[in-house]
Amino acid sequence: METQKTNKIVSFIGGKAGEYKINTISTISGSPIALCDFVSIKKETLSDSQRTNSTWVLQGFASNLRYTTRPEKNILDEKPSVLGISENKCLAMIPIKKNSAWWLLTQDERRQILEEDSKHIEIGFKYLATINRQLYHSRDLGEVFDFITWFEFSEENEAQFNELLSKLRSTKEWTFVEREVDIRMTRI
Amino acid sequence: METQKTNKIVSFIGGKAGEYKINTISTISGSPIALCDFVSIKKETLSDSQRTNSTWVLQGFASNLRYTTRPEKNILDEKPSVLGISENKCLAMIPIKKNSAWWLLTQDERRQILEEDSKHIEIGFKYLATINRQLYHSRDLGEVFDFITWFEFSEENEAQFNELLSKLRSTKEWTFVEREVDIRMTRI
Repeated sequence: METQKTNKIVSFIGGKAGEYKINTISTISGSPIALCDFVSIKKETLSDSQRTNSTWVLQGFASNLRYTTRPEKNILDEKPSVLGISENKCLAMIPIKKNSAWWLLTQDERRQILEEDSKHIEIGFKYLATINRQLYHSRDLGEVFDFITWFEFSEENEAQFNELLSKLRSTKEWTFVEREVDIRMTRI
Repeated sequence: METQKTNKIVSFIGGKAGEYKINTISTISGSPIALCDFVSIKKETLSDSQRTNSTWVLQGFASNLRYTTRPEKNILDEKPSVLGISENKCLAMIPIKKNSAWWLLTQDERRQILEEDSKHIEIGFKYLATINRQLYHSRDLGEVFDFITWFEFSEENEAQFNELLSKLRSTKEWTFVEREVDIRMTRI
């Protein structure tokens, strides 16, 4: 009975084949990751041979929201993200790592910086209807990045997506980001 | 480079051999787990053959504190937990699962219940010097329990430990616990 566990780990695999064609890999801060042409997503942990055949593997799990209050959650729930819509041909995958100063903060201090100072959640409200997204947590798996966010949007909303990133990257919260890579893809 | 990950997953293995001799397994709520005589801890995920040879395997990872504020953290840091002290012969492992109502709450609602209503952190302050402990998160690994807490204390402090549990189990927070097993062991 105790072995009936559910897999919650998602693997993002960079390599020579996959459902998503990479257009650009931009290093925003910290060290770059190896270049490759495709990303594939598997809802499982990988065998050694699957790892050997890939350029890189990043893993994470979706989880409960860590900072959002009830009034904020009610706004988010009005426009839930939907992934996999074929018209949303533009895809982005943004792994980030925050520095040790961030992880030494307590919950109330992190909330203060994330929302009261940086308006991370509030900034996102404007984009709920056009930018679909899913956050995956990686740090607790001992991964080299702390988070991976996956985004899906239409070509006409690409400028909006870049505006969202620009706003977030200018916040106080982002001064704690020590590594960030911005991978843009097209759905095949 | 991207494959240089650190293992953070700890496996608690119930079976016929191990460093910790089980004295009692008490089901506090929900369904029981299979009885066995020993617990072993490995700081790794397990192979299929290691799993086959065990009665049960529960896994989790230590992580950053999810609710603690700075003033609370400062009190915790004055008396840090130390595991592995040979004089602390009494060990307890308490896996719990909270219900779906808990996980539908937002961060502010969970904090309200955990501390403002239930004084979970404040209750623990009295026992910092005598009850050493470590919390492991399991839910994000798709495990059957959400958390595993490991405790170490001396025989003379066993009554104090039972008092701590009794206080916590009578809180509003504990009305969200749908499964709890209390495994008591002796260090060999």
